[in-house]
Amino acid sequence: MAGSIYGDIFSVSTWGESHGKGLGVVVDGCPAGISLCEDDIQRFLDRRKPGETKYATPRKEGDEVEILSGVFEGRTTGTPISMVVYNKSQKSGDYSEIASYYRPGHADFSFDEKYGFRDYRGGGRSSGRETIGRVAGGAVAMKILGELGIDVYAYVKSIGDIEIDSGRMQRENRERSPLRMPDLDASQRAEDFLCEQMRNHDSAGGVIECVIQGVPAGVGEPVFGKLDAALAHAVMSIGAVKGVEIGEGFQAASMRGSENNDAFCTGKSGKIETATNHAGGILGGISDGSPIILRAAFKPTPSIFSEQRTVNQSGDEINIHIKGRHDPVIVPRAVAVVEAMAALAIVDKLFVGMTARMDKIVQFYRPAGTK
Amino acid sequence: MAGSIYGDIFSVSTWGESHGKGLGVVVDGCPAGISLCEDDIQRFLDRRKPGETKYATPRKEGDEVEILSGVFEGRTTGTPISMVVYNKSQKSGDYSEIASYYRPGHADFSFDEKYGFRDYRGGGRSSGRETIGRVAGGAVAMKILGELGIDVYAYVKSIGDIEIDSGRMQRENRERSPLRMPDLDASQRAEDFLCEQMRNHDSAGGVIECVIQGVPAGVGEPVFGKLDAALAHAVMSIGAVKGVEIGEGFQAASMRGSENNDAFCTGKSGKIETATNHAGGILGGISDGSPIILRAAFKPTPSIFSEQRTVNQSGDEINIHIKGRHDPVIVPRAVAVVEAMAALAIVDKLFVGMTARMDKIVQFYRPAGTK
Amino acid sequence: MAGSIYGDIFSVSTWGESHGKGLGVVVDGCPAGISLCEDDIQRFLDRRKPGETKYATPRKEGDEVEILSGVFEGRTTGTPISMVVYNKSQKSGDYSEIASYYRPGHADFSFDEKYGFRDYRGGGRSSGRETIGRVAGGAVAMKILGELGIDVYAYVKSIGDIEIDSGRMQRENRERSPLRMPDLDASQRAEDFLCEQMRNHDSAGGVIECVIQGVPAGVGEPVFGKLDAALAHAVMSIGAVKGVEIGEGFQAASMRGSENNDAFCTGKSGKIETATNHAGGILGGISDGSPIILRAAFKPTPSIFSEQRTVNQSGDEINIHIKGRHDPVIVPRAVAVVEAMAALAIVDKLFVGMTARMDKIVQFYRPAGTK
Amino acid sequence: MAGSIYGDIFSVSTWGESHGKGLGVVVDGCPAGISLCEDDIQRFLDRRKPGETKYATPRKEGDEVEILSGVFEGRTTGTPISMVVYNKSQKSGDYSEIASYYRPGHADFSFDEKYGFRDYRGGGRSSGRETIGRVAGGAVAMKILGELGIDVYAYVKSIGDIEIDSGRMQRENRERSPLRMPDLDASQRAEDFLCEQMRNHDSAGGVIECVIQGVPAGVGEPVFGKLDAALAHAVMSIGAVKGVEIGEGFQAASMRGSENNDAFCTGKSGKIETATNHAGGILGGISDGSPIILRAAFKPTPSIFSEQRTVNQSGDEINIHIKGRHDPVIVPRAVAVVEAMAALAIVDKLFVGMTARMDKIVQFYRPAGTK
Repeated sequence: MAGSIYGDIFSVSTWGESHGKGLGVVVDGCPAGISLCEDDIQRFLDRRKPGETKYATPRKEGDEVEILSGVFEGRTTGTPISMVVYNKSQKSGDYSEIASYYRPGHADFSFDEKYGFRDYRGGGRSSGRETIGRVAGGAVAMKILGELGIDVYAYVKSIGDIEIDSGRMQRENRERSPLRMPDLDASQRAEDFLCEQMRNHDSAGGVIECVIQGVPAGVGEPVFGKLDAALAHAVMSIGAVKGVEIGEGFQAASMRGSENNDAFCTGKSGKIETATNHAGGILGGISDGSPIILRAAFKPTPSIFSEQRTVNQSGDEINIHIKGRHDPVIVPRAVAVVEAMAALAIVDKLFVGMTARMDKIVQFYRPAGTK
Repeated sequence: MAGSIYGDIFSVSTWGESHGKGLGVVVDGCPAGISLCEDDIQRFLDRRKPGETKYATPRKEGDEVEILSGVFEGRTTGTPISMVVYNKSQKSGDYSEIASYYRPGHADFSFDEKYGFRDYRGGGRSSGRETIGRVAGGAVAMKILGELGIDVYAYVKSIGDIEIDSGRMQRENRERSPLRMPDLDASQRAEDFLCEQMRNHDSAGGVIECVIQGVPAGVGEPVFGKLDAALAHAVMSIGAVKGVEIGEGFQAASMRGSENNDAFCTGKSGKIETATNHAGGILGGISDGSPIILRAAFKPTPSIFSEQRTVNQSGDEINIHIKGRHDPVIVPRAVAVVEAMAALAIVDKLFVGMTARMDKIVQFYRPAGTK
Repeated sequence: MAGSIYGDIFSVSTWGESHGKGLGVVVDGCPAGISLCEDDIQRFLDRRKPGETKYATPRKEGDEVEILSGVFEGRTTGTPISMVVYNKSQKSGDYSEIASYYRPGHADFSFDEKYGFRDYRGGGRSSGRETIGRVAGGAVAMKILGELGIDVYAYVKSIGDIEIDSGRMQRENRERSPLRMPDLDASQRAEDFLCEQMRNHDSAGGVIECVIQGVPAGVGEPVFGKLDAALAHAVMSIGAVKGVEIGEGFQAASMRGSENNDAFCTGKSGKIETATNHAGGILGGISDGSPIILRAAFKPTPSIFSEQRTVNQSGDEINIHIKGRHDPVIVPRAVAVVEAMAALAIVDKLFVGMTARMDKIVQFYRPAGTK
Repeated sequence: MAGSIYGDIFSVSTWGESHGKGLGVVVDGCPAGISLCEDDIQRFLDRRKPGETKYATPRKEGDEVEILSGVFEGRTTGTPISMVVYNKSQKSGDYSEIASYYRPGHADFSFDEKYGFRDYRGGGRSSGRETIGRVAGGAVAMKILGELGIDVYAYVKSIGDIEIDSGRMQRENRERSPLRMPDLDASQRAEDFLCEQMRNHDSAGGVIECVIQGVPAGVGEPVFGKLDAALAHAVMSIGAVKGVEIGEGFQAASMRGSENNDAFCTGKSGKIETATNHAGGILGGISDGSPIILRAAFKPTPSIFSEQRTVNQSGDEINIHIKGRHDPVIVPRAVAVVEAMAALAIVDKLFVGMTARMDKIVQFYRPAGTK
């Protein structure tokens, strides 16, 4: 499959470049009857916007989404939902120099090798603005999850070496932190750390954690269609992500079986559940009813203001100073993107999972009382 | 897509349970003209076999593969290659007890929740024997990569806290280590550690590293079809894997941009390359010509011989002692599986990537000299 | 997608050649809990067997199917169902001559052009025996349709110019006719016609009609996933099919709108239905609740015993006499294949269709009485 | 897969309703380096426009396409090409009455059954305007085929019972005929026939034939990925198409093998070819190098001005008179749509087909002279 389509049943097809006319997404396979308007999308897009703090590029990206199809009288019709965000403040002039050389840590070189040339304006399709399509599509997925009582909540777990303390974490503090760290103390220390990076003309990375509550047990397909494999694919496809883990993740590799196994018990409601959640809510690739926990590692922003060594398209080695406006850290803005990708993966698996049992299919198509 | 099919152009469709009649795979989309015989497959299957060391189950799994289709006069024909390994030594009696309860860390519960019942004999489809289909399919992918000069090499990087020293690592030592650690000193220490786990009726996990050399720059599709996303999907779909990372991986999250960026330079041959390889060979989801480096974290084997707390299907909380034959660590046997999944992912992306440039397509279909 | 996999959710992956070790199919995405045994498959395979009448090749193809996975204690488990039919009576010697030249009307030449060489024994993958995998997979789809009250019934509508009279057609007569024509008078005339073809060392084609009753209104996805498009794909993929039509089909092209439109009315049960069924049960690509009616045109068997003109692989023009055992008409044996492909297409669309409405998805995952 | 995406490698994702804000398509998987501008798309869109003759609705649909992404400095970049046509002259008021009842021959009823409600303005997603996305995407496919020397040419073969005489057919006359019949004599008679239908407040259907020249031998995948199956799917997915056939099509069913087989011979250039083309250029689902010939049967326009019987949403039987502006025949406008769908199917199969032979893959990735 060509690279800009994601999902087997609930599919998004994204498009657009940082300095083209706009960016967008077509959502295909969205069920009919969901209340949907621009505001439902806009509030997710606003969370990935830069320009709100000094830790993000001061560019104004007044990204306003418009729904072009698939909604009638306020409800989804079951047909494709096309959404567009027109580019407004992109100045191509800012980027003309970078056409001639390959920025370290960016996709300039690999795009040129693949396609023979590239849209060099601000990264083109490899720009972080590409995530607008993901977030807009993910916002629709979030509406679906909401109707099913499923909650997706991501936040910045660490920036550089500064990590939040889970004991001090409060969900509602995420939006109070300019870095989207729901432990405000850690957030303050991370701000100090970032200021230091900025003074050094350097940048930082970090880790986002995402917790998904309310996914019923039984979601995910054995073998290649495992829920964790789908989440890994979805989240690793975000630019700058270099690692994904579920539950204990890499830590599990140095645990003993007796530590890492989650004992089953009978919960208060009489439902079978796990006493602990080292597995992060997924066993054998299938949800077990516990919260799903995943983390994604983001590399530091490759655009830094200090001098770097590289080559130009002729192969001459040169020193460069990247100009322009760049985020010293992109992790806070990526929180909404991780949520979007997790939501897309889970909706798709929830939909595929409706066909797992013949008795439920019979009940769906031939409800009791019909012949 | 149903869960047991992987790949868009080069596809594998695996099947089989640990205690059914057998396991196998159908490879669809394999090019014609590749020399292929059972030995090409068998040597990969042999590497995932247990029973060779004391760190693996003493079960005899004399898994012999048979090619049923797709090969004629020693060469692939372009049509589906069906391969089967019949189960021989599986004794269902060993597993009858586990039908009644949910083993911690296994997929018993999540399968029951999904399907309403399960093949409880030895894990059924969620057994590690499921990887036979992956490895057989991956062996075909390895033949293709071989013809393209691409080398895939995985090994055990750590078991528990014991990690190899890259300075002492020698490729050829992998097969000399019962734990497939190519640093024989670390391997010995890991053996000691494992013996301790076995005495404690416990188990261990570990990390596998995979290095892929020779992938040309330009492989991988922007956005959702990124090469690293495909690798993450492929490798996370292996049972017991809880984390996947590329290049510096999670470590990158605490690095500074100036540390993590790989400067471009002009190599001896005049080709543009990177001076370092923090990125692990992938920029913007597209290979940059450097070796691709990935790691997968495996949780400790969930089957342990010490007493565990769980519930039975009626929801009663009980204490259990799992009997039978189990690997105290499955990581060494998984090396061939990681190689197989990496090979499958890369072949599929190499094939999709042939259509990236119109000039090359024209040259393919209308070579110079034709009209 | 590589060519031997069909279906998005309910998928079949077929394999095998006429003179290889066997043929088979892996069914992925089959729901758990369906009662299934070899007999359920065998009775469909028996209907595509030759050797029962003088109008089919006298070869003995004692095709016995074996289920290798996916069924436990008599019920499907939700995991892949692998089925195999080993080849028994194929004598490669019969076909050695045809390796050197291209049989008119066969795929010898196009396979050679595509793959550079071919398995020349009896057509290899392009043999009619390839349909064994389709029919075995289709038999599983038929079980699913049966549980949903959906009936698929195909029969031979015409052979050469001899067409059945719908007034004389009786469903139960299909199996009484050696040509599977449920009008026994037409069947007798078609037998006479076929005898004449055989005396002339020639062959005949025909048309199969398939009627599918009980498909609820609302199945099929707008635009490219239309139910009729899926059926056209499925049925046209059968070797020797040169045309597919739905409802009035090509006849509709010369009708007037006032003739062809089906008026809606209120049926006895109070349900809205159509007074006529020119549309063949599909409007806008979506089922309307009326019986679905499709027809497939089969070309005459290309293997004929009279002299034919062709070229050999060196490009020399030669005259050939094809030897061996061939069906003077393959249409009667293809009835089970058309049913199988129709069943596969409809099950896949029924499954995708479960996600069309949010209210039904909510009801599925959060049935009344739960929170 | 959700219904509005077509193609495995070269994919189009279409969206939009007749009376929404606009319609469009995202093309994913288009190779880099193709010269492309709005004019390349517009000239195909103009051919599906109504309003040019009295046989089409007098609505003005000044459909102007805009390319929003994927093209940089006049060439495709390899990233998604998003194209939009904003709706301009759609007056919702015209269609308000039809919200309450089900128009015979339209998808009103089946959409309501599927989704629970529908966008009732002018058919919404089931409107003929949906084909704008197909034609725009197909125009990109046509550019690719052009660079490969492949020509796609469709025309109206018959309207009602009036059929063109192949002896009088001249390619360049297609655009001289208001009905796109390249036999101007037949075109005149068809005009007379249509005038009669209009006087009777009735409508007509017809047949479109499409000839594709220059497809190299070897395109198409065996079994389910046959080229004819892909074409059947693609063309049957066009609204109003009720039948598809290849080569002799349904006629083949009453031919004898000796008549229908195409003898192979050695052409003037020394290339192997077929002396006749009953097969329509496809053998065993794979192109044989001869022109590919397909026909599609279109039903008469369901919107007619005479009184019709139907039911309203309450199930009451009523008589209706459909108002508004409707084409008495849509076949001439559908010529560009058939070409578009054929082009999409063939490009996708050409791309998949690049991986059929290992020697060609090696040559692609390791051209002679490299190591």
